[in-house]
Amino acid sequence: MRFSIERGEILSRLESVANAVAQKTVKPVLSGVLFRSTAEGKIEMLATDLETAIKTVAAPVHLDGEGAFVVEAKVILEIIKNLPAGEIIFELQDNNLIVRVEKSRFLLPTMSPDQFPEIEPTHGGIEIETSVTVLELMIDRVIFCAAKDEFMRNLNGIYWELQGGFLRLVAADGFRLALAEEKIDTEVEDRFLLTLKSMKDLQSSIRTAVSDDLKIVYDGAKVGFYFDNTEMIARVVDAEFPDYRKVLPKAFKSRVVASTTLFSDAIRRASIAARLGSESIKMELKDQTIKLIARSPEHGESTEELDVKKEGDDLLIAFNPRFLADSIKKIDTEEVELNFVDSNSPLQMNPVDVEGYLYIIMPIRLI
Amino acid sequence: MRFSIERGEILSRLESVANAVAQKTVKPVLSGVLFRSTAEGKIEMLATDLETAIKTVAAPVHLDGEGAFVVEAKVILEIIKNLPAGEIIFELQDNNLIVRVEKSRFLLPTMSPDQFPEIEPTHGGIEIETSVTVLELMIDRVIFCAAKDEFMRNLNGIYWELQGGFLRLVAADGFRLALAEEKIDTEVEDRFLLTLKSMKDLQSSIRTAVSDDLKIVYDGAKVGFYFDNTEMIARVVDAEFPDYRKVLPKAFKSRVVASTTLFSDAIRRASIAARLGSESIKMELKDQTIKLIARSPEHGESTEELDVKKEGDDLLIAFNPRFLADSIKKIDTEEVELNFVDSNSPLQMNPVDVEGYLYIIMPIRLI
Repeated sequence: MRFSIERGEILSRLESVANAVAQKTVKPVLSGVLFRSTAEGKIEMLATDLETAIKTVAAPVHLDGEGAFVVEAKVILEIIKNLPAGEIIFELQDNNLIVRVEKSRFLLPTMSPDQFPEIEPTHGGIEIETSVTVLELMIDRVIFCAAKDEFMRNLNGIYWELQGGFLRLVAADGFRLALAEEKIDTEVEDRFLLTLKSMKDLQSSIRTAVSDDLKIVYDGAKVGFYFDNTEMIARVVDAEFPDYRKVLPKAFKSRVVASTTLFSDAIRRASIAARLGSESIKMELKDQTIKLIARSPEHGESTEELDVKKEGDDLLIAFNPRFLADSIKKIDTEEVELNFVDSNSPLQMNPVDVEGYLYIIMPIRLI
Repeated sequence: MRFSIERGEILSRLESVANAVAQKTVKPVLSGVLFRSTAEGKIEMLATDLETAIKTVAAPVHLDGEGAFVVEAKVILEIIKNLPAGEIIFELQDNNLIVRVEKSRFLLPTMSPDQFPEIEPTHGGIEIETSVTVLELMIDRVIFCAAKDEFMRNLNGIYWELQGGFLRLVAADGFRLALAEEKIDTEVEDRFLLTLKSMKDLQSSIRTAVSDDLKIVYDGAKVGFYFDNTEMIARVVDAEFPDYRKVLPKAFKSRVVASTTLFSDAIRRASIAARLGSESIKMELKDQTIKLIARSPEHGESTEELDVKKEGDDLLIAFNPRFLADSIKKIDTEEVELNFVDSNSPLQMNPVDVEGYLYIIMPIRLI
């Protein structure tokens, strides 16, 4: 088996697939990427960590013979990155892969393709048509709120909900929650949970997609993402995501509209003292101003005052400033809306006059 | 004491001074910067880790009263970085510093300036006139070859030599050596060793200099660098730098001239296999070519071939590819010259047709 392929073509494909490679594994073959010639004269590439699998197809310039091999993902990726632009020749000789461009030549040991797990595609199920652009944005808007701890299985991921003609993504870590939704063209109602790791793989993988079409298929056990000659299969998590609707505040008593930039700058500055101290920031709504106060017994205090539009009650409430800062970064309208109930109820932060995403942040109890 | 100052002015000055702040210290005051009003109506800033000290002067817009205070370097730097452009007001109230811009206000505890060590300036001694640009380049050309280990006192720094109308900087770690020299306007001969830490401080500090003049003063115990309203005082190291002249090869048997870019690319690629394996790369000079061969029992092998201009003997020699890669990055001519004696003698790498800097790299014994 021998094929040649443009560096650009193989590099972007390989980078996409390599996202699924297992980081730590007891099965050596899983640290590799499987290359395989197809009946149509293409080169298929596959990687999996047994939870998530990514498969893509690249178009070679020439392909002689047929075959398959597995090579260490990190090594082949680094080699291709460091090769000059142009055609790269891949040749399988015995159990070694030869990679050549002009006078650069690499000989790499390969692993047997027989040991590589087959990736089971999705079987039937629900289909959702959307786009790379939409999905990328939705994931970006919620993923940072997912619990980082792998042992919190029901929060260490993104919850997908199909309901009322909407696709809804929700992530939460017990202190905050993010929700993003988009209208979709299906009446089916269903829900599933995918791991944070698989969602990060998907993020990295769709980043390099050239065409925008994306189809999602859910067959009850697995979810398939089909885009740009690539498919990613992720196993759904067998755990119950909490009922997020219970967390959404029902009736607000104060509503504040502030400049997103000015509020964001003020939080960043107030965070300096808060971060060195108690990780808490007091927020005082009074008339048409918001005051942010952070105190650290050792590192002093900071006060920020901001003119805002306010409706409803005055209020004194406290937050972890990092949660405010993380969410406000994702607000892409000029003004941000802050909706409060009382000092012990969560804040809802959302863009002004735009539907589609919101953040819920639990307050810290005032002492 | 109260003063106001433009954000840009205080930020660049403070960043320069903060380089000297002690990273780990048992004396809390050394984690701070001393601010002090001067008789000329300026604000002096000072920081030291007792080995190196940096002092600079900033011009306030207004200054009322006189005084001095010490504040935590990290905190004040982060606050100023996060403030918007414009005039910042500093006010000392009892033992607190108030920092204000519009509706942002910080209150910081201060430390007593009495506990801050006085920095002794240089007394008389040798003076060298040079420039920020020249010194920055010279330090950059040698500093990466200095030993990183603080316990290797005589190699963990840069050796300065004044000799024959040249200023010469030398750094070595036992495996490689870097030398950079510049003609200077003094006939005095002398030498001293400065720590790697102080040289890094100097590098960071001169980076922000606006004017290019720089004066170096050596008084036998300390070295002073005077530039851009700033002075940096560094204590010389009481240890003997080895006689570097003994390492410089005397007569070469092979001389190779190669394209700097092509040679550098080839080393980078060959390093992939070498890094994963034995950290060694074989170099084969034959006729008008250089071949680089790296082997790793687990990760395969790589071969790079390069057309070069060669005079003298064919040769087989081996190196740590990282040492080759580090040095070739600093060669700023289109072609690089490689001078060899034999398989067991160090390689001298230098730019073609340009005096002023060179690298000596010890070979690895071929097995």
